[in-house]
Amino acid sequence: MASRVALIQGASRGLGLEFCKHILKNKSPAAVIATCRNPDGATELRALADQHPGQVTVLRLDVSREEDICGAADRVKESFGRLDLIVNSAAMLHPSGKGETSLREVTAQGIISTLTTNTVGPLVMAKYFAPLLQKGGGSFGQQPAEKAKQHSGIIVNITAKVGSIGDNGGYRMSKAALNMATRNLSIELGRSRPKVVCVCLHPGTVNTDLSRPYHRNVPKEKLFSTEQSVSALMNIIETLSIEKTGKAYNWDGTELPW
Amino acid sequence: MASRVALIQGASRGLGLEFCKHILKNKSPAAVIATCRNPDGATELRALADQHPGQVTVLRLDVSREEDICGAADRVKESFGRLDLIVNSAAMLHPSGKGETSLREVTAQGIISTLTTNTVGPLVMAKYFAPLLQKGGGSFGQQPAEKAKQHSGIIVNITAKVGSIGDNGGYRMSKAALNMATRNLSIELGRSRPKVVCVCLHPGTVNTDLSRPYHRNVPKEKLFSTEQSVSALMNIIETLSIEKTGKAYNWDGTELPW
Repeated sequence: MASRVALIQGASRGLGLEFCKHILKNKSPAAVIATCRNPDGATELRALADQHPGQVTVLRLDVSREEDICGAADRVKESFGRLDLIVNSAAMLHPSGKGETSLREVTAQGIISTLTTNTVGPLVMAKYFAPLLQKGGGSFGQQPAEKAKQHSGIIVNITAKVGSIGDNGGYRMSKAALNMATRNLSIELGRSRPKVVCVCLHPGTVNTDLSRPYHRNVPKEKLFSTEQSVSALMNIIETLSIEKTGKAYNWDGTELPW
Repeated sequence: MASRVALIQGASRGLGLEFCKHILKNKSPAAVIATCRNPDGATELRALADQHPGQVTVLRLDVSREEDICGAADRVKESFGRLDLIVNSAAMLHPSGKGETSLREVTAQGIISTLTTNTVGPLVMAKYFAPLLQKGGGSFGQQPAEKAKQHSGIIVNITAKVGSIGDNGGYRMSKAALNMATRNLSIELGRSRPKVVCVCLHPGTVNTDLSRPYHRNVPKEKLFSTEQSVSALMNIIETLSIEKTGKAYNWDGTELPW
């Protein structure tokens, strides 16, 4: 039986896929539950699963569909009975794939789609997976000696601080709301035992499709590969404890103001 | 012709209704455009309009319907050609009318409804009304002597800092996102002339239906009547200038941290 069980949401590409690779390579023995909207189209993820037989469970999960999240939680409960780490990685800039650069381009439907994926999704994930995280073994992060302060699981929401003033639409709003949601969660899930640590992590500007509209504003040495970013973020995750819950951290480990 | 044109969104009751009353009483001659979801049911607002013949235009506007907002902007354009002040006052705690007190009660649909009314609505209002505010006469707020720094209009988004840790659902998230949206707006609408001032105002805990679930936690002297709260907020509005844009202020005029 795997000593660690991690669920990566949004695992078909970018940071999510890299989290799966990193855990399989560096955190074995580990079971990885990799969720994405369309497993049939996720060729890289399926190849990764084939390379690690018995270690990767690929589940279809559209974070905007509550029934998908509920169903995935049932599957994880049956197969593993617990969870040590969730990373919510799926995010969209805007349904068009481009940031909204002026107020004129803002549409109610566009903002609602972005909020649904980036903000509502992680909160509904927490709703259905919190009971499994409360049964976790706390095998990610750092455990203090004092039993009462030990955590059973960790929720990581990937956030962002978009520097460009060109984004006037839903993306930054959705991330501000996600930060608030994470803080609320940390209170509810930190009150009693078993405790679940809830944080936001900012991955830096990473060379993925999502952030491409912003690359031209970023100096080359500050544009990370997914490997660099995930390696930095996993280092932070391995230092997490209940003392660090409810906060947002930059890729270099510094705390971000809310 | 009215020297001031103000639009109050969510004017059928509570703070929105009180803003209409206050402007008609204290800021005459003023034209008030009062919008609400269901004018037929808004008996107090319609009585107010009858008391001030020719001064109040009641428009049906559901802030979750982009076509309503677009239609209302067309009506205001035809009738007035400009706008000096918008107050976005409509807000919901949750579709049920109660705050969500635990993660188990959170539903995707509930959060999306709350975000749509509280966050997306004010942003889409800004989209359609910004051109009218840019044609405003700047008759609310304080104008500096220097022409280049004068503003043509003001957007006020009513925000809130819910103190209770019992709210784990959409309300606080929606307000965090609204703060971010207001900041983004202030950048876009403050860059060039004519300038529109965009702020969030926190009304204190007001004795309205919306905040009723939280009243038991509030000492009596801190529970404001709508008159007290709106009077304090109008005092702040009358001190606004472009130097104060992009920020959030408490009912007592102090700046709130984001």
